[in-house]
Amino acid sequence: MPVFLSTTEADFEARFAALLSMKREESADVDDTVRAIIDDVRARGDAAVIELTAKFDRLELTPETLAFSDDEIEAECARVPPEERQALEIAADRIRSYHAHQFPEDEQWSDAAGATLGWRWTPVAAAGLYVPGGLASYPSSMLMNAVPAQVAGVPRLAMCAPTPDGQVNPLVLLAAKLSGVGEVYRIGGAQAIAAMAYGTESIPGVDKITGPGNAFVAAAKRRVFGRVGIDMIAGPSEILVIADKHNEPDWVALDLLSQAEHDESAQSILITDDAAFGQAVADAVEARLPTLARRAIAGASWRDFGAVIVVRDLAEAAALSDRVAPEHLEICTEDPEALLPEITHAGAIFLGQWTPEAIGDYVGGPNHVLPTARSARFSSGLSVLDFVKRTTVAQMTPQALRAIGPAAETLAQSESLQAHGLSVRARLDRLNEGV
Amino acid sequence: MPVFLSTTEADFEARFAALLSMKREESADVDDTVRAIIDDVRARGDAAVIELTAKFDRLELTPETLAFSDDEIEAECARVPPEERQALEIAADRIRSYHAHQFPEDEQWSDAAGATLGWRWTPVAAAGLYVPGGLASYPSSMLMNAVPAQVAGVPRLAMCAPTPDGQVNPLVLLAAKLSGVGEVYRIGGAQAIAAMAYGTESIPGVDKITGPGNAFVAAAKRRVFGRVGIDMIAGPSEILVIADKHNEPDWVALDLLSQAEHDESAQSILITDDAAFGQAVADAVEARLPTLARRAIAGASWRDFGAVIVVRDLAEAAALSDRVAPEHLEICTEDPEALLPEITHAGAIFLGQWTPEAIGDYVGGPNHVLPTARSARFSSGLSVLDFVKRTTVAQMTPQALRAIGPAAETLAQSESLQAHGLSVRARLDRLNEGV
Repeated sequence: MPVFLSTTEADFEARFAALLSMKREESADVDDTVRAIIDDVRARGDAAVIELTAKFDRLELTPETLAFSDDEIEAECARVPPEERQALEIAADRIRSYHAHQFPEDEQWSDAAGATLGWRWTPVAAAGLYVPGGLASYPSSMLMNAVPAQVAGVPRLAMCAPTPDGQVNPLVLLAAKLSGVGEVYRIGGAQAIAAMAYGTESIPGVDKITGPGNAFVAAAKRRVFGRVGIDMIAGPSEILVIADKHNEPDWVALDLLSQAEHDESAQSILITDDAAFGQAVADAVEARLPTLARRAIAGASWRDFGAVIVVRDLAEAAALSDRVAPEHLEICTEDPEALLPEITHAGAIFLGQWTPEAIGDYVGGPNHVLPTARSARFSSGLSVLDFVKRTTVAQMTPQALRAIGPAAETLAQSESLQAHGLSVRARLDRLNEGV
Repeated sequence: MPVFLSTTEADFEARFAALLSMKREESADVDDTVRAIIDDVRARGDAAVIELTAKFDRLELTPETLAFSDDEIEAECARVPPEERQALEIAADRIRSYHAHQFPEDEQWSDAAGATLGWRWTPVAAAGLYVPGGLASYPSSMLMNAVPAQVAGVPRLAMCAPTPDGQVNPLVLLAAKLSGVGEVYRIGGAQAIAAMAYGTESIPGVDKITGPGNAFVAAAKRRVFGRVGIDMIAGPSEILVIADKHNEPDWVALDLLSQAEHDESAQSILITDDAAFGQAVADAVEARLPTLARRAIAGASWRDFGAVIVVRDLAEAAALSDRVAPEHLEICTEDPEALLPEITHAGAIFLGQWTPEAIGDYVGGPNHVLPTARSARFSSGLSVLDFVKRTTVAQMTPQALRAIGPAAETLAQSESLQAHGLSVRARLDRLNEGV
C-alpha cells in the first residue's frame, strides 16, 4: 500500500519531509572500477574497448566491426514493421518541430558608451549519444537525444549502444537513422563513454555526451565531465499528478502506473483536494495492477514509493508539488492553466485530462529526458541548448575605451593585475596623445 | 622563450598537436579527502564546518559568526576607497545591462494536431556563489557570478569566501552587496561547497553552486553535482590573439601578458600572418616582462606555454584558433568582423585593437567566467541561463489525442511499457464511445 497523507493531520509535515527525503536509489560506488576502465581505454584504445566488450557483453568485435556498417543498419531497419516505422516517424517529426522552436538567436547591440556587444551561438562539432542495452533500450530515448542535436546543427552524431550477446533492437537503429546519426558503435558501459570522450583509433572523440545509463555509465560521465560536456545524471523516473474530483480515477491510476512500471525505484504521487477521489484512484491502481505484465515492478514501486496526499485546496497542492520538484507533473483540474503560474519547479507539465504523461514520452514534442530526483529545482530537460554554445563578442571604439577604460584600470590595480591595467593604459595614453 | 611555429614548416602539424595536448595543470587527486570532508559536513553540519575552518583557515568561528553580520559588511564596505567603489559600480552596471539581454523568453504555440505546446523559464530558488580567498579573491569574479543570478531573479543569493587568518577583502564584500547577495559566509574549500549543497543548521542549502576554486573546491563541486547544479570546472586561463602587422606590438604583448600574469599555468598564443610582427611582439613581451611585479609568474607562463605561430593567411589563423578553442580570442586585424564567421569555438571574442581582453575582465559587460582548456568546444561562459530552468508544457485536446495517440500507443507497446499504452488507450476508447 502506498502512503496516504493529509495536510490536515498533525504529523503531516514530518511525514511529507520523510517522503521527500526517501532514498530511492542505492547508488553503488563503482568509481574505482570506472576509473580503471577509463584509464585502460585511454591507454590502449580499441584493444581495451574490444576486450571489455567481450567481457561484459559476451561479444567478440574487431576494430572493423566496432561500428555497424551501413548495410547492417539498413538490414536491421528493414526488419521494423510498417506500423512501428510510421509511429516512429510521427514521433521524430513532432519532436523535431517542437525543438526547432528552441534554437536560440544571436544578438548584437551598441550601448551608450559606444561599445558593440552581443553573442553568437554555434553547434558543438560532434555529439555522442548513449543508448542502454537490454530492457532499457528505448527507441524513443534515441529520438529524444539525437533530434535536439540534429536540430542544433551538430555536424557529426555518433551513438553507442551495447548489444549483449549480439542482440540488436532494430527500432533503435531506425530511430538513429531518422535523427541523423551517422555512426553507430556496438559498445556500452564505461568503456563506451571513455571511447567517446577520449577517442580511440576507430572511434573519433566527441565534444558532448548525452543519454541515460546504469551506475557505470553515470559514474563514467561524471568522470569525463570537463574533458567533454555531459547532460544530467538521470535517476529513477517520477510523476506527480494534481487532480480534482472531475477526473476519471482509472485514467489517473494508469498515469501513475505508467511511471511505476519503469522501475521499482520509480515514484508516483497523487495530490488531490478530494479524499474520496484519492481513494478511488488507489482502488483503480489496485484493479489495474494484476492485469499488467510488469505488475511486479509497478507494484513494488507503488507499494514502496507511491503516495496519495489529500490537501485543503489546489494552492496547497501547487506548493507541495514545488517542494517535490517532480520530473513529470500532470495538472488534471477543471482549470489547469489557472494553477500553472503557481508552479515553479517541474521538468515537464501536462495540462488537463486529455494529456496523459505517456503522450510526452513519445509524440507530444517536448523532450522526455528530464531532471529527476528533485533536480528540476536547478536543471531543465534536454534541449537544443545542450548542443550549442555561446561565444560572447565585444568591440570597443576609441571613445568607448576612453569612457570605461579607466574603471577597468582601477579594478585591475586593486586586484594586483598590473599587465591588465597596462594593456588598457597603453591605449588610453595613445588616445590622450591624439588630443 | 615561447614556442615559435610556422605553418610552412614540415613538422608544423606535429608541433601544433603537441602544443594542443600540453598538460598545463597537474590535477592532484584529492577525491578521497574531499569525499571525507563532504561526508563529515553532511553528518555533523555546523560543527564540522567550524572545525575544518579552524584547521584550514586558522579561524575560530561559532554558528553565530559563520556569516558576516550586516553591520560587519557595512563596516568593510565603508573601507573601500571612493575611486574603487565607483569603478566597481560602473562594472556592476555594465555587467547587469549586458546580462539583462540574456533572459530567455517563454514560448507557447498550437500545432496542426491541436496540441498546445511551449515552455516556461523560472529562476532557481537559491544560488550559492563561491569566491576563493587569498590572491585569487577577485571582486570582479564576485560580480561576474552574482549579477547573472540577480538578473535571473534568483530570490536568495548566498556567498562563501574563506577569510584565512581572518583576512577580508572589502571590495569582494562590496561587490556582493552591489549584486544582491544577502548572505556571506566566511568559509571556504570543500567544506563550503558541502555546506551549500547539503545545508547545515546555520547555512540553508542552495540549488545551484557557481564560482572558481582550487582543486578541493573543484573536486567537491564535481561530487555534489546532481544534488545541486554547478557551473563548469575552470582551469588556468588562456588567450589567443590573431593579429596582423597593422597593430602596435606593445599592445599585443601586454594583452598576452595579462593572461600570463594570472598563473604560471596560463597560456598566451599569438597567431600572425607576418613573421616580423610576430618577432616584434615577442621582443615587446621581453621588454615589458622585467617591469611587471608578477614577472616571475608571467615569465614562467610565457616561457613554458607561450607560442607565436606564423600562418600563410588569416583563414589559416581562424582554423588553428578553432582547434585551440580558446577561452579568450582577440581578433586584431584590419577587418576583424570579416574573420568572425570563420570562428566556431571560443569563449569570448574581442574585436579590434581598441578592445584589450582586460576590458572584458571588468567592465565590457560580457561574463569573464569562461570555458577553459578547450571546453569552448562544448560549453559557454556563465550567463543568466545558468540560474534559470525551463519547464516544458503540453496540452492535448480530444482531437489532438485522437490524431497522435495511436502512434504513442504503438511505440509504448514496442517498448513493452503496457501501462503507458493503456493510459492513452483508455482515453481513446472514451473518445470512440462518444462518436
